[in-house]
Amino acid sequence: MDRKYRVGILGATGTVGQRFLQLLERHPQFEVTALAASERSENKTYAEACAWRLPGEIPAFARGMRVESPRPPLDCDLLFSSLPSDMARDVEESFAQAGYPVISNSSACRMQKDVPLLIPEVNPDHLRLLEKQRAGRKFEEGGLLVTNPNCSTIMIALALAPLHRRFGVEAAMVTTLQALSGAGYPGVASLDITDNVLPFIENEEEKIESETLKILGRVDTEHIEPAPIRVSAQCHRVNVADGHLAAIRVKLARHASLEEVREALASFTALPQQLRLHSAPAQPILVREEPDRPQPRRDRDAGGGMSVTIGRLRSDRVLDYRFVALSHNTIRGAAGAAILNAELMIAMGNLAVQAAQSYGRESR
Amino acid sequence: MDRKYRVGILGATGTVGQRFLQLLERHPQFEVTALAASERSENKTYAEACAWRLPGEIPAFARGMRVESPRPPLDCDLLFSSLPSDMARDVEESFAQAGYPVISNSSACRMQKDVPLLIPEVNPDHLRLLEKQRAGRKFEEGGLLVTNPNCSTIMIALALAPLHRRFGVEAAMVTTLQALSGAGYPGVASLDITDNVLPFIENEEEKIESETLKILGRVDTEHIEPAPIRVSAQCHRVNVADGHLAAIRVKLARHASLEEVREALASFTALPQQLRLHSAPAQPILVREEPDRPQPRRDRDAGGGMSVTIGRLRSDRVLDYRFVALSHNTIRGAAGAAILNAELMIAMGNLAVQAAQSYGRESR
Amino acid sequence: MDRKYRVGILGATGTVGQRFLQLLERHPQFEVTALAASERSENKTYAEACAWRLPGEIPAFARGMRVESPRPPLDCDLLFSSLPSDMARDVEESFAQAGYPVISNSSACRMQKDVPLLIPEVNPDHLRLLEKQRAGRKFEEGGLLVTNPNCSTIMIALALAPLHRRFGVEAAMVTTLQALSGAGYPGVASLDITDNVLPFIENEEEKIESETLKILGRVDTEHIEPAPIRVSAQCHRVNVADGHLAAIRVKLARHASLEEVREALASFTALPQQLRLHSAPAQPILVREEPDRPQPRRDRDAGGGMSVTIGRLRSDRVLDYRFVALSHNTIRGAAGAAILNAELMIAMGNLAVQAAQSYGRESR
Amino acid sequence: MDRKYRVGILGATGTVGQRFLQLLERHPQFEVTALAASERSENKTYAEACAWRLPGEIPAFARGMRVESPRPPLDCDLLFSSLPSDMARDVEESFAQAGYPVISNSSACRMQKDVPLLIPEVNPDHLRLLEKQRAGRKFEEGGLLVTNPNCSTIMIALALAPLHRRFGVEAAMVTTLQALSGAGYPGVASLDITDNVLPFIENEEEKIESETLKILGRVDTEHIEPAPIRVSAQCHRVNVADGHLAAIRVKLARHASLEEVREALASFTALPQQLRLHSAPAQPILVREEPDRPQPRRDRDAGGGMSVTIGRLRSDRVLDYRFVALSHNTIRGAAGAAILNAELMIAMGNLAVQAAQSYGRESR
Repeated sequence: MDRKYRVGILGATGTVGQRFLQLLERHPQFEVTALAASERSENKTYAEACAWRLPGEIPAFARGMRVESPRPPLDCDLLFSSLPSDMARDVEESFAQAGYPVISNSSACRMQKDVPLLIPEVNPDHLRLLEKQRAGRKFEEGGLLVTNPNCSTIMIALALAPLHRRFGVEAAMVTTLQALSGAGYPGVASLDITDNVLPFIENEEEKIESETLKILGRVDTEHIEPAPIRVSAQCHRVNVADGHLAAIRVKLARHASLEEVREALASFTALPQQLRLHSAPAQPILVREEPDRPQPRRDRDAGGGMSVTIGRLRSDRVLDYRFVALSHNTIRGAAGAAILNAELMIAMGNLAVQAAQSYGRESR
Repeated sequence: MDRKYRVGILGATGTVGQRFLQLLERHPQFEVTALAASERSENKTYAEACAWRLPGEIPAFARGMRVESPRPPLDCDLLFSSLPSDMARDVEESFAQAGYPVISNSSACRMQKDVPLLIPEVNPDHLRLLEKQRAGRKFEEGGLLVTNPNCSTIMIALALAPLHRRFGVEAAMVTTLQALSGAGYPGVASLDITDNVLPFIENEEEKIESETLKILGRVDTEHIEPAPIRVSAQCHRVNVADGHLAAIRVKLARHASLEEVREALASFTALPQQLRLHSAPAQPILVREEPDRPQPRRDRDAGGGMSVTIGRLRSDRVLDYRFVALSHNTIRGAAGAAILNAELMIAMGNLAVQAAQSYGRESR
Repeated sequence: MDRKYRVGILGATGTVGQRFLQLLERHPQFEVTALAASERSENKTYAEACAWRLPGEIPAFARGMRVESPRPPLDCDLLFSSLPSDMARDVEESFAQAGYPVISNSSACRMQKDVPLLIPEVNPDHLRLLEKQRAGRKFEEGGLLVTNPNCSTIMIALALAPLHRRFGVEAAMVTTLQALSGAGYPGVASLDITDNVLPFIENEEEKIESETLKILGRVDTEHIEPAPIRVSAQCHRVNVADGHLAAIRVKLARHASLEEVREALASFTALPQQLRLHSAPAQPILVREEPDRPQPRRDRDAGGGMSVTIGRLRSDRVLDYRFVALSHNTIRGAAGAAILNAELMIAMGNLAVQAAQSYGRESR
Repeated sequence: MDRKYRVGILGATGTVGQRFLQLLERHPQFEVTALAASERSENKTYAEACAWRLPGEIPAFARGMRVESPRPPLDCDLLFSSLPSDMARDVEESFAQAGYPVISNSSACRMQKDVPLLIPEVNPDHLRLLEKQRAGRKFEEGGLLVTNPNCSTIMIALALAPLHRRFGVEAAMVTTLQALSGAGYPGVASLDITDNVLPFIENEEEKIESETLKILGRVDTEHIEPAPIRVSAQCHRVNVADGHLAAIRVKLARHASLEEVREALASFTALPQQLRLHSAPAQPILVREEPDRPQPRRDRDAGGGMSVTIGRLRSDRVLDYRFVALSHNTIRGAAGAAILNAELMIAMGNLAVQAAQSYGRESR
């Protein structure tokens, strides 16, 4: 790779936007050349516009960068987006329209029929939808729109994928204990969560129940056939900074022993591992045997925040098996997910044309 | 009622023991006349022996009371026990043997075949087991042993009871988020739970899965026929001081509409309400409609800590219905449960003989 | 008392506004007849406008009350105000102008020269300023403006008062650890305080350093002579729901033994105790001897939230003595403070005329 | 450096012991060759004996190492100790007696007259005490005992050092907000700290008040002349995992402007920086200008956990200046401090002989 892709970040000042900057600071393939955020931040430097919440400092390269308006043109080859969902749809489509590849973490377009909802380890073949997208939309040459799932759904779908592939999953019951950073900033008021649990996260149960079926669905030339799985989700916010945890039960289509289930999870690797993508963890799923793992504070950074840790795998009295899964909600569940998506698309040739084309745009 | 029952407390210095004292401070039927705890505390006054953890002060009546050894005789008519389970069995049986009624919160004897596992609103008829107990054991006149369920199980069984009665429950899947006080003191280390969740509570899943079946089972003259319900439990410790929360899904034997389910829960009252027992809440189950309730800090004290609050009642995609339940784990889930058991037993005549008999003991 | 004062609450939906409602629910002298809040809440019922954050339910009397605009006239004899400080000044003065007594918890007018900054146990004689206020302002008959101090300052000034009276205080150094509810709702973001401390509360150090001098100052006919005390404050926000704690060192003008200091604090009572005001605690200051008290969760509710608990009284190597003080920041530090102010003013005759006058207003 | 020093860790399974292992995992000068802990752990592998509490895994090199009894001989050139203070004195002296250099984090021997209480940036000249130690004790050749201060004291002394050097410090008043990890494991019970603050840490105020004087004192040939500073400390435990914070006021002997004070702090570097010691941060003190820093979660890892971050530097109304300091209590405040001490001693030739000598021991 001779030259880095020049990337812009939409929603650069938010919780996930900050993670994008942190994860891209020393990325071998990407260089951040444009930052955009809502109008409040415009014409400020990033250091002025951003209330940095992550440990450590604002990456030096970004401090003095001007925060621009989230409207084309921006000086970059492709865009990562973590815009709030209410404005994401219009903005992202306008960039795609203008010929930019948009790799989005926002929920706005995830369930659109011609938009891949991508987890590189799970459904890389869903990138085929881009042909349909290209044909059906009138995006300028190079424009495209790819999304990653909701922060809880990624972890759940990753955990279910090897089981679905080997044994078929008929039903999955998920109860989540989700971290504060999932709500953005300022997000959850401290008075609401100190000595407390909130049994409600808006639209979260619905997202898990619908997105999972699309991700695990089969792609045809034309569309995704949702997976025939019944999914039930109950979601809770708990007093944890980072790291979503999910208690999961599954019913399998074919009989499998506990040992076969464990092995299917522990041995799971996929295309990103074969391609040695930069952000792909050596093991997408880590299976632990200790009775009291996974725990958010101790396991969220496994695999650089990109591995899902699974523990407490047991037989279940109602469905077949149960276990607890955990992953870092703003790395594997958001910024890291989008970056891995872009890395896959480069490796698969889905971004090649655009980058070339964008060289021209730069010099305009 | 001319005269108060004179009660002793086994395990008086622990978390639940302190609740007993607090709840009994102004109780119309009981007066605390004896305190016993492990040998470490012996021959100290209660104020010396007890690291009081509840808000407010040690009840004045208890400050100067001498903490005694947990061995008969103690100067009282009946005993409430919250001994650690490793010593509870021997100690409780020795008191029953010596002719004391023992109303225990400990897990040691709960699953014994001749010991009622009692929730007054759910299975008052299980007190019939006392005949078998009396016949089978060679307790001195007046001795008996009654237990209340595990702190999570009480809430779950209370929530399931009206559904089981009306529609039959075939399966129940429970995922708990449990409070710190459930682990006693010192219990959970702060370093383990700050910014964290622990997906493991020793023996808790097993207790919920087995105790629920006994509680909802049918009593014959001779034994309890466990309810034919499949119960699955996944348990977590969260950073909340008091108040256990459970996300519950149920599969019903007969079809019921969401409205019928809601009505069965909301209208539930039982024998303790009819008898106007002192600790019985007007409504054992409160159904709330707000999307974000129940919450531990805001709902744990409902009904004086004796009501179970249920919210987020919805249809479920895998089982039939789902909801979230919450109750105070050291009141309805422990000390208050045992006290309500004793109140029921007095009303039903199960303690009458003993009290009379104990007058004699006093004057010995 | 034949008839209750009819009170209105300005800022009724906020954190302190909710405490006003809770504390006034069964108050023998006051009856809430009007609720006002910012324009967002107008024309809603209180139940619709208010996100109730306190344990338990919205007081039944308030649920259906209409929330009005914070502009005169309102149907009441006097007003309690907890408006945000940016709007408090104009609104409060407009009500006083229109003939209403305004008992305010807001900071806006506290340091005005003709406005009493009142703690009933400390400076009841400051009510004399009302004559100057009446003379200097052109308030309609009955209008007046009285304030209570900042939530931390009340506790500090209460703790210093008996020492200043007996021995003279030359200097006081205060380091606070303040609770989340002091910032209102939504207030502090959970992501900012989980596993963290914030060493900054806007304007708090300045308020403590200036208000304390006014409170402990001497009143002349015309003005307050600030107390000649050097006060230094460093303020921190910690992860506690309610209860401000302050580590305090003092330098005394006259020599006093540790025992004399302890006795001065422990024996302190004042006019509100003599007058047996409804909200006055039997002991304004509780001195505890345990090495690890006071603690927010265990001591904030002492005296119904109106007592200051002091512990760890020791000699100090730099100044003379040191101790730790704690009180409930939204009861003694806010709503309870204002209510006690009103109770004092009734007892002292400062509200008598107004109430009579207001009867007329009602029937207009 | 051709060969790594072979180090043993006394108290290897505790909170600080775990930090030692983590920090030494890739250290260029040290290699861990022996692990010792209390008898409970003996004859277990480290993985069996240790409940690892830090994020990530037990360092691979340590997993299978046998945990030995804390008695000589151990197979190593020098020892780091973080034994509990009740057993530290005897054990550490027995190792020094047997010819081992002991670099201790325990409090047991810190105030002994011939034991350096060392902070490499502050008092490297205190190593001269080793001559006296060697002369006065009958340690076998190579044996010596060096300590580092209490976790809070290190931060305080580091912050005071440049001020004391430049302007003289006459008095320092310190109020700490200390993290949970400072109490070890299990340490503080979660029920004691959730929604709470504890105003008491046993012996902590005494340690700060005495150790600071020794550290900043002048060394003669024979002894340390304590610095003539009055130090006052009030200590609190707050709900933070790692990172001690201290609000500090100072009175200076000579007049200095705010700008001079800031410059003295911000420009401070010392011998460890000149010697480029491996664990020495580029800046021992970082001065921040934001109004809300330092914060434990955001600043504790500055300089790899070895920098002290200072903020909120202001004039003070009682003493001269005030500021807030923060550092990582188990890195700069414990394990990292001891390791930096050893690095300094190697550079200064204090460990050279011992290491050579120990080669012989090995081959015996």
